[in-house]
Amino acid sequence: MSSDRQITLAVVLFPGFEPLDVIGPIEIFGMAPEINIYYVAEVAGSVKGAVGNVQLHAQFSFQDVVSGAVPVPAWLLVPGGFGTRTEVTNNQMLNFLRHVGPQVELCMSVCTGTSLLAASGLLDGRKATTNKRVFEWVITNSSNVEWIRAARWVQDGKFVTSSGVTAGMDMAVRVLKDMLGTERAEQAALHTEYLPSTDSTLDPFADPAFVPPV
Amino acid sequence: MSSDRQITLAVVLFPGFEPLDVIGPIEIFGMAPEINIYYVAEVAGSVKGAVGNVQLHAQFSFQDVVSGAVPVPAWLLVPGGFGTRTEVTNNQMLNFLRHVGPQVELCMSVCTGTSLLAASGLLDGRKATTNKRVFEWVITNSSNVEWIRAARWVQDGKFVTSSGVTAGMDMAVRVLKDMLGTERAEQAALHTEYLPSTDSTLDPFADPAFVPPV
Repeated sequence: MSSDRQITLAVVLFPGFEPLDVIGPIEIFGMAPEINIYYVAEVAGSVKGAVGNVQLHAQFSFQDVVSGAVPVPAWLLVPGGFGTRTEVTNNQMLNFLRHVGPQVELCMSVCTGTSLLAASGLLDGRKATTNKRVFEWVITNSSNVEWIRAARWVQDGKFVTSSGVTAGMDMAVRVLKDMLGTERAEQAALHTEYLPSTDSTLDPFADPAFVPPV
Repeated sequence: MSSDRQITLAVVLFPGFEPLDVIGPIEIFGMAPEINIYYVAEVAGSVKGAVGNVQLHAQFSFQDVVSGAVPVPAWLLVPGGFGTRTEVTNNQMLNFLRHVGPQVELCMSVCTGTSLLAASGLLDGRKATTNKRVFEWVITNSSNVEWIRAARWVQDGKFVTSSGVTAGMDMAVRVLKDMLGTERAEQAALHTEYLPSTDSTLDPFADPAFVPPV
């Protein structure tokens, strides 16, 4: 694959984001030398995650992107986390997504991050999925989405939505393969010693009685 | 299981840490209400990761812990990343590990983080493993360790070392199960929709010719 093309990926942060929803895909995408990543939040600076006392740094604010001071990214990634419960009614967030979403080539969400894309209207008429344990809440955010219950991830045009947390890593491996070639995806999986789920339709977590062996 | 006991887990950060080595286990451990997490680095503040333009915040410095201003944690987690190449000869790092290591109940490393435990002497006479793609380099850091090539993770007494990156999540699920019970481990795997590797001896990445299906 050619590596001439440079891709900018913006990750949306908000208080109460799920740390692994961000860092799982970012570790995969970060292996590709073509992909440059930045973090954007309503207010630039340190943003506290949902668990683990994590604080991640957002280099830019929504306004930096909306004003044109920072270019609109080619790819967008929206994580989930309990903070989405607040963000689905935060007009700063929704307006940012409505501004950037139509301009990006690829718009991804992980877990309950799908609720923000749904609430913004970006997923109207699209298929999408989300975390199975809070599925009933997420789908209340839009009746214009064709919700897919059993799926590790769902792609519909430029929108790719994943199930809970680690499903975001499987989505990222597939996106890397589709967009930059099999070798990039293999390198990322080898580096992270990850055995990705490669069949998006296999989703044991869609069964409410399923408990993963530990 | 009783949840009366509170456990403090300290995560060691350094420039060039592997983001997923930290956030994978932290997402698992962060699900347990008994576990309180802080981040510690040579200098407190923002620490830049190995990939993805990630900056994580370290609340405390090594000196904060060594001086007693911050209590020594019950559990310690040391991530890998290309920054370990520098840290294996950083006496601030090695002396911190030599100070804290003997006092903790549980001392974990992910990926090349094992090189730091090895260089500090903490693993002398112990079995340990690390990332398979840089195995030859890691083992140069100590000839007093019994290096295990084929293992997803290795426990020897209070030391638990894992293979590359995502192996840290499997190690974390097992540690959670062993230390806080099956229900805590199941909750963490369910929340993250993660299917952990539960057999520590199954390690396809130990075969240099293995390429994961993507």
